[in-house]
Amino acid sequence: MPARGDHEARRRDVSEAVWRVLAARGFGGLTLRAVATEMDASTGLLTHYFPSKKALIAHALDLADERTATRPLRDAPAPGLPALRAALLDVLPLTPDAAAMNRVWVGSWDVALADPDLAARQRDRYGSWRGRLRPHVAAAVARGELPASSDVDDVVASAAAFAHGLVVHALFDPARFPADRQTAMLDDFLASLTPAVRPE
Amino acid sequence: MPARGDHEARRRDVSEAVWRVLAARGFGGLTLRAVATEMDASTGLLTHYFPSKKALIAHALDLADERTATRPLRDAPAPGLPALRAALLDVLPLTPDAAAMNRVWVGSWDVALADPDLAARQRDRYGSWRGRLRPHVAAAVARGELPASSDVDDVVASAAAFAHGLVVHALFDPARFPADRQTAMLDDFLASLTPAVRPE
Repeated sequence: MPARGDHEARRRDVSEAVWRVLAARGFGGLTLRAVATEMDASTGLLTHYFPSKKALIAHALDLADERTATRPLRDAPAPGLPALRAALLDVLPLTPDAAAMNRVWVGSWDVALADPDLAARQRDRYGSWRGRLRPHVAAAVARGELPASSDVDDVVASAAAFAHGLVVHALFDPARFPADRQTAMLDDFLASLTPAVRPE
Repeated sequence: MPARGDHEARRRDVSEAVWRVLAARGFGGLTLRAVATEMDASTGLLTHYFPSKKALIAHALDLADERTATRPLRDAPAPGLPALRAALLDVLPLTPDAAAMNRVWVGSWDVALADPDLAARQRDRYGSWRGRLRPHVAAAVARGELPASSDVDDVVASAAAFAHGLVVHALFDPARFPADRQTAMLDDFLASLTPAVRPE
């Protein structure tokens, strides 16, 4: 029986292989056979870790969650709009790593929409994300950066929608949406929320 | 040998079955076996239509294109922002049919990102879509509805991103994003582009 250290090293190897398959081929290409080939192992070994396709998909989503939670984030700038801007920049595919991460999440939407459990998990993830953006928008209103009449939940939802849509367009057309244009579009979006300071 | 009419009726049956599988299970659930079961036919019959998985996916995307192109659209209102609004409302999942259509498109992103040909096709689709939105934004600038300093391509890209992101959030959380909230968010987004007329 191998030592515990071997088990954990093997588990990490499996996770790395799952991630590489996902980033290259998406959920449609995520099979036990593809993961086995990627790590030069037998499909039999993989069935030990993943007794079903659903278990493999669940592990892939766990990995995406873990990598999202542990990725480096921008330093917290001033509260309000600067903090909202930083949080949205953290989501955009401005670097190859961020593009790979987004490619996995965008790819996950197909399987998630097909399975009520996964769809609820995704719905809750995006609800939590909006919940983390909310204090920044509330602070922006309190600081007078946004109109006092702003509906905080609607501004949060619009900013989240804008960022996710830009992710999709940038993934499909990176030449037309390089990092500097994504950033400029985000800045224009945020400026549009604050008419008082917007140049005409 | 069956008459031509039989062939065409059978072809329509196949396409209907492909669409129902897609709408329910996405591209991850689109297999010859699932389509065969859906239409109570043999997998062998289906291989006649689709010699490969890639052929099946290509047909699914053709169907989505065809249904998108032939769906009922809103009447053309006044040029400029009202026309842009109508074009974006035509995309949002405001009805069950529009939600099913969007579910298929969002689901297609996973397979499209995994295949250079399909990714290029998707990139060109969204480029064309932005090209169809562009005259509305240009007219809005010409009519003074948007600032003369507006970058027309950026406004088009932002509006497209906002709409697609809202599609994703509404698909995952229809209770939180009913049709009236989607419409109100779109109206707020469009109003934010026009600071001169925006109430403080």
